Amino acid sequence: MTVNIQRLNASDADFDSALSALLAWDDSVDHQVNESVRHILHEVKTRGDAAVLEFTAKFDRLSVGSVAELEMSQERLQHALKTIPQDQRDALEHAARRVRDYHQRQSQESWQYEEADGTVLGQKITPLDRAGLYVPGGKAAYPSSVLMNAIPAKVAGVAEVIMVVPTPDGVVNDLVLAAAAIAGVDRVFTIGGAQAVAALAYGTDTVPAVDKIVGPGNIFVAAAKREVFGTVGIDMIAGPSEILVICDGQTHPDWIAMDLFSQAEHDEQAQSILISPSAEFLDAVEASIERLLPTMERAEIIRTSLADRAALIQVADLAEAAKVSNRIAPEHLELSVADPQALLADIRHAGAIFMGRYTAEALGDYCAGPNHVLPTSGTARFSSPLGVYDFQKRSSIIGFSAEGASRMGRVASVLARGEGLTAHARSAEYRIQRD
Amino acid sequence: MTVNIQRLNASDADFDSALSALLAWDDSVDHQVNESVRHILHEVKTRGDAAVLEFTAKFDRLSVGSVAELEMSQERLQHALKTIPQDQRDALEHAARRVRDYHQRQSQESWQYEEADGTVLGQKITPLDRAGLYVPGGKAAYPSSVLMNAIPAKVAGVAEVIMVVPTPDGVVNDLVLAAAAIAGVDRVFTIGGAQAVAALAYGTDTVPAVDKIVGPGNIFVAAAKREVFGTVGIDMIAGPSEILVICDGQTHPDWIAMDLFSQAEHDEQAQSILISPSAEFLDAVEASIERLLPTMERAEIIRTSLADRAALIQVADLAEAAKVSNRIAPEHLELSVADPQALLADIRHAGAIFMGRYTAEALGDYCAGPNHVLPTSGTARFSSPLGVYDFQKRSSIIGFSAEGASRMGRVASVLARGEGLTAHARSAEYRIQRD
Repeated sequence: MTVNIQRLNASDADFDSALSALLAWDDSVDHQVNESVRHILHEVKTRGDAAVLEFTAKFDRLSVGSVAELEMSQERLQHALKTIPQDQRDALEHAARRVRDYHQRQSQESWQYEEADGTVLGQKITPLDRAGLYVPGGKAAYPSSVLMNAIPAKVAGVAEVIMVVPTPDGVVNDLVLAAAAIAGVDRVFTIGGAQAVAALAYGTDTVPAVDKIVGPGNIFVAAAKREVFGTVGIDMIAGPSEILVICDGQTHPDWIAMDLFSQAEHDEQAQSILISPSAEFLDAVEASIERLLPTMERAEIIRTSLADRAALIQVADLAEAAKVSNRIAPEHLELSVADPQALLADIRHAGAIFMGRYTAEALGDYCAGPNHVLPTSGTARFSSPLGVYDFQKRSSIIGFSAEGASRMGRVASVLARGEGLTAHARSAEYRIQRD
Repeated sequence: MTVNIQRLNASDADFDSALSALLAWDDSVDHQVNESVRHILHEVKTRGDAAVLEFTAKFDRLSVGSVAELEMSQERLQHALKTIPQDQRDALEHAARRVRDYHQRQSQESWQYEEADGTVLGQKITPLDRAGLYVPGGKAAYPSSVLMNAIPAKVAGVAEVIMVVPTPDGVVNDLVLAAAAIAGVDRVFTIGGAQAVAALAYGTDTVPAVDKIVGPGNIFVAAAKREVFGTVGIDMIAGPSEILVICDGQTHPDWIAMDLFSQAEHDEQAQSILISPSAEFLDAVEASIERLLPTMERAEIIRTSLADRAALIQVADLAEAAKVSNRIAPEHLELSVADPQALLADIRHAGAIFMGRYTAEALGDYCAGPNHVLPTSGTARFSSPLGVYDFQKRSSIIGFSAEGASRMGRVASVLARGEGLTAHARSAEYRIQRD
C-alpha cells in the first residue's frame, strides 16, 4: 500500500493557495471542552483541595484522603533515579548537562547607566518566584520534556519549580521522576488535567500558587491554560509538531525519509515537509519512505500523518526554498545542504534550525542543548523557543536627579497638558526648580 | 466633601484579606461583547475590505468608497508635524530621542559558539516582519502612546509598522499623527475597533497582515486581541492603571498627593496606594488630598477612583513596605525615600520603579526613556514592560559535526527508545559512525 504524499511545485500557478491549504490548522476548541474546563477551574478556585481530590478520583481513578498524599517526596524521586536502567540514567544526565550549559548562555543581567546630570536609567532582571510544570501522564510521558521545561526555570533562578503529573490508576513513570530529580524539580504532585492547572494557578491549601505554568498537555490542559492566562503567565499553546527539511539532493534519501518519519510518528496531525530543487531526489525519498515504512513500529501513525499532512515541494533553487520556508515559519527546520551557514542568512522564521546533513532533528529533541519546546503552526514568525527569558522578567529603573527632574519636568508638563492630563503635569511641575 | 480613602495597617490580623479585597479586579468580559467581537472578526476574515468599510461606516460614521481612502499619506503625517504647536513638537521630539536611546540598549545580538568537536550551537535574533499598532481615537488618543509602542518596534528592526487609529465622524488628532511621523510609523489606516484588529490579524486586500498587534484599546479591542492571539502575537491585555508609592515620610505631602492624583485621573478604576511607616505622614497626605482635590480639572474622576480603589497603608518599616509591595506587584512603584538604591534590593516585582523623591511617575509616562506600557493587575510577577524584545524573536541554531553527531546520536538513541519513539532513534542512529 503506497503512501500518497502530496507533491507541490513552487512554480505552479496555484502553489500559493495549495500551500495555504496544506498549512491550514484549526485550533478552535470544542464548546463542551471549554464548558467542562471552566467548571473544573471554578470548583478548584472556590473549593481548593476538596475539588482537586474529587476530580482526581473521577478522572484518574485515584482515591486518597488528602492532596498531601498525592505529593511525591524527594526520596521517591531519588529512588526512581537509582532504579532506572543505568544507560537511561547516563543519557538523561548527559542531556541535562548539555541543556544546562546552553541555557546558561541565555541568562540576562540587570543594567543601569548614569547620565551627565546624575539621572540613572536601567533594567532590573528578577526570576519568577514559582513556576509550575505540567507533565502529561500515560503514554505521552516524556522525560526529555521534564528536562527541557524545568532546567531553564532553574537556570533562571526560579526558587521553586512545582511539577504536576497525572498517574491514572496509580501508574507512575519512573523515567519521568528520575528526570525531575536530575532537573532539580522542587516539588511533585501526582495530579493532572484542568484540575492540576487550576491548583497551580489559584493555589490550594496544599498546592502553592505559581506565577507561570509551562509544559505540554492534552486539549483540556491547553484550554485550562488559555483560561488562566492573565492570572498566571503561560507558555505558547502548542499545535501539532512539524518538520521542514530543505535538502540540496545530496543527503542519503533514507536519512531524510527517517527524519520525516521522526516527526510523523508523534501523532496523526504532525506535519512533515521536504523541499528540494531536485525532482529526482524527491522521487528517491519517496521510494525510501515506501521501503522503510513497513519496518517502523509506529507505521500506521506515520502513514496517516504523511498521507494527510505531508508534502514534497519542488523549487527552482535553494533561495526559493528559503522563501517558501519563511512563509511556513516551521517549528523545526533542517538545512540538509552542503553550506548551511550560507543558507542561514536567508532564514527569517523558524523555531530551531538544524544545520547540515549530520544534524538530525532528533538530536535537538533530546540532547543538543537548545530547548525542544518550540513555536508551532507558523508562530515562529513572532515567538521564540522556551528559554531562560521565559522565567525572568524585567523592571524599568528610573531615577532622576534634582537637575534631571527639573529639566525633564518641563517636557513632561508640555506633553501632559497636550493630553489633558493636568495631575500628571502638576506632579512633574512640583519637581521643577524655579530660580 | 471629604474623600473616604481606605486606611489599612499591615499589623492588623485581617490585613491579608483586606489587601486581597483591595486588589481584586474582575477582568471577565461580557458575553455579548465577545459574541459581537467574534462576529466582526469572522466577517473581516471572510469578506475583507468590504466588511471593514461596513463596520467603519456603522461604528465611526465614516462612509468612503474603499479602504484605500482610509489610508493616511506620509505627507499628511508630515503636515501634522509641521502644524502642531512648536512646544509640543519640541517636547515630542525630545521624548522620542530619550525613548530611542533607552530602547537601543535592549537590542539583542545573535550568538554562536563552537565545541571542541566542531559542533556549533547558537541563537539567531530576527525582528518581526510587520507589527500592528492600535491607537485609540477620541479623548483617549495619546501621542505618547504612539511613541512608546512604535519606537521599540523600529529599534528592533521591524520593517513595517502599521498603525490603525479610528477617526469617529472624521475627527483627526494631529498630535497623534505628528507622533507617528516622529516615531517612523510606515503606514496609517484610520480604522478602529475589532474590525481594525481583524484587518491587521488576517490581512485584507488593502491592509497587510501583521505578525503582532500591540497598543491599548477599549473592551472591544481587548477582546478582539485575545481572540486573534495565536494567529498573531499580542502584548499583554492591560487592566486599570495603578501606582504604589512607598514613602519614608520625608517627601512633601503635596507631591505625593499629586502623584496619587496623576494615576487616579486616568479613570475611575485606576488604583493609587501609598505605603508609609509614618501614620502622621499618611494623615498629612490625606490633608493634602482634601486641599488639592477641588483644584483639579478631573476632580470627579479622581474622587471616585480614590474613594473606590485607593488605600493608605501603614507598615512597621521600609522592609515591610517592600514585602507588601512584592505582594501587590504594582505597575508603577515610586520609592520616595532617602536611599532608594538600598530599598531596590528588596523589590522583586514591579513594572517600573521610580527612584527617589524627584522621580515623579509622570516623568516616566512621557520622557524618561523606559516604556510606559507596563504589566498591570499583579502581572509584573511574570511579565515585563513592552520592549525591543517584544518585536524580535529567537531561533535556536544546532549544527553537529560528523563526530558530534556520532557521539550524541548514541545518547539520543537511548532516550528516544526509552520514550518508545523509534523513528527518532533510527534517525539519530543513521548518523553514528561505525568503525
